[in-house]
Amino acid sequence: MSDKILLSHGSGGLMSDRLIREMFLTYFDNNYLSELSDSALLPADMQKISFTTDSYVVDPVFFPGGNIGKLAVCGTVNDLAVSGATPKYISAGFILEEGLPMKDLEKIVKSMAEEAKKAGVKVVTGDTKIVNKGKADKIFINTAGVGFLSEKYAHISAGENIRSGDKIIVNGAIGDHGVAVMSAREELKISNQVYSDCASLNHLIKKVLEKCEGVKFMRDLTRGGLASVLAEIVEYRNFGIRFSETAVPVSEKVQALCEMLGFDPLYLANEGKIVMIVSSEEAESILEEMKKDPLGKESSIIGEIKNTNQGKVVMETEIGGSRIVDKITGEQLPRIC
Amino acid sequence: MSDKILLSHGSGGLMSDRLIREMFLTYFDNNYLSELSDSALLPADMQKISFTTDSYVVDPVFFPGGNIGKLAVCGTVNDLAVSGATPKYISAGFILEEGLPMKDLEKIVKSMAEEAKKAGVKVVTGDTKIVNKGKADKIFINTAGVGFLSEKYAHISAGENIRSGDKIIVNGAIGDHGVAVMSAREELKISNQVYSDCASLNHLIKKVLEKCEGVKFMRDLTRGGLASVLAEIVEYRNFGIRFSETAVPVSEKVQALCEMLGFDPLYLANEGKIVMIVSSEEAESILEEMKKDPLGKESSIIGEIKNTNQGKVVMETEIGGSRIVDKITGEQLPRIC
Repeated sequence: MSDKILLSHGSGGLMSDRLIREMFLTYFDNNYLSELSDSALLPADMQKISFTTDSYVVDPVFFPGGNIGKLAVCGTVNDLAVSGATPKYISAGFILEEGLPMKDLEKIVKSMAEEAKKAGVKVVTGDTKIVNKGKADKIFINTAGVGFLSEKYAHISAGENIRSGDKIIVNGAIGDHGVAVMSAREELKISNQVYSDCASLNHLIKKVLEKCEGVKFMRDLTRGGLASVLAEIVEYRNFGIRFSETAVPVSEKVQALCEMLGFDPLYLANEGKIVMIVSSEEAESILEEMKKDPLGKESSIIGEIKNTNQGKVVMETEIGGSRIVDKITGEQLPRIC
Repeated sequence: MSDKILLSHGSGGLMSDRLIREMFLTYFDNNYLSELSDSALLPADMQKISFTTDSYVVDPVFFPGGNIGKLAVCGTVNDLAVSGATPKYISAGFILEEGLPMKDLEKIVKSMAEEAKKAGVKVVTGDTKIVNKGKADKIFINTAGVGFLSEKYAHISAGENIRSGDKIIVNGAIGDHGVAVMSAREELKISNQVYSDCASLNHLIKKVLEKCEGVKFMRDLTRGGLASVLAEIVEYRNFGIRFSETAVPVSEKVQALCEMLGFDPLYLANEGKIVMIVSSEEAESILEEMKKDPLGKESSIIGEIKNTNQGKVVMETEIGGSRIVDKITGEQLPRIC
């Protein structure tokens, strides 16, 4: 392992992976953490608790479609929701740089409160630390979340029922968050506005879980994008994934900007997108259910689980070829969330 | 409210208080948060959950008697324990500055793991973000914690049974953490080493709760020190506190350094100290129980709850006078935890 922390350790890709396995898993060795899911499933007396944490360091703090506060709520709500849990309680830990305009903080806190209300969660505990000017960058927010999980959905988090033939659904166009944040950075002024997809997906997920029994696994697509999440799903497993490039929804604007700037939408961050792995029998009815929700109306079946290419993700390209898709390796866009 | 974030907003004193009440409570308005205790008590099906969060930004990262990692575990364990809960699960959110030496991170993570083991909690979920060099100061850690709370102790967190005549116990000498961190700062090289009192107090607390029924309230003494915590306890309440300066344990070293540097030990941060408010009938037996534990062997009854001076803390001084003790107002020592 490198002897210094590098930006790529934060990419959500291979370097992050090594840091987590070789450092954190080595020391904090326990069954809950070693699942490496975004929330820990914890036994309570009568039902399971889902517990998750995320720190947000997005730069800039305000971007088209959201800000660090909205992001901090959506992100943690989504981490809980994809575990199959009902998100209930959120903590908010603020690290503020001396000199941060109070009206900026207020805007941020206000949108956290609005998003929490929308998602149906409560911010129940918090902490604030201030550091001298120049020792942090405006504002960093940590949100931890607690959700309750019915036994019925306890298998979803580990994805233990995934089988060959299962379908993979994405709930809409990818890459919007990455492009929105990029465009908000001064060095990349872009006129053709793209808005972050930043949204809490717990209500959408709940509707699907209540109507259909075929959901086997869910994961939100944040740092590292769709490609990294798919690669993580097959890692150390006895199945592979095959998906079609053309089936993956990408907006025209995002596609055009990616071509111009040399980014691959598959690796761009999202904050309101999930993949679901579902039984082939229920795939169509789940897709229909998702399309009824404003946050899922562009949902698409993009591929399926295969017995072949174990541990690998294969993409059928637009021009009829196929290639292996791996996790993000370097740091495509630091501080995207 | 000031239009900019000031260092004193992080003091744990009056300015922090205004920020919390006028900003966070205003927006995140709910019954759990408005208790303003260090952990939120959340209804679960069968028992209550205690949920807390704290970010750690201590400077320097390593100090005599501990480091930011040990602190991050002890602090959150103590926040849960003083609510009457049994600490169970911890999350760890890291914000790392590009260039942080990996061996420093390892030392920190290792001592988190050691402290977690000692305290009997598990680090079950985590997150790592990296920011560019100069955009954070080495390492910031957020730990959130979940504990389980028996109905039997549900009254402790709000302190609703506190009555005139109840005794106030502190579990040992105050100010060590503040002085240890201060001495580790380059500008204040002090030869006469003082070690941080940084420790998880959950086992000590558990022993007392199991043996005695008279514990009515507990609070750990962190930022703002003993004075700020006592002032907070009486705030908006129909009782006051009277305590004796000479009864408050302070080590000779800390006393001497405070006199030299112009600090008041009452306002110095601690990371292994609590106040307990206990019934007068059980005060002596609780004191005895505490003294049996290595982390409580210098425990002392420092004062009591009074019907007089409602909302005020009165200290009987060493020379026989008395004065009002208020919360910390400015920023005595920024980034002390």
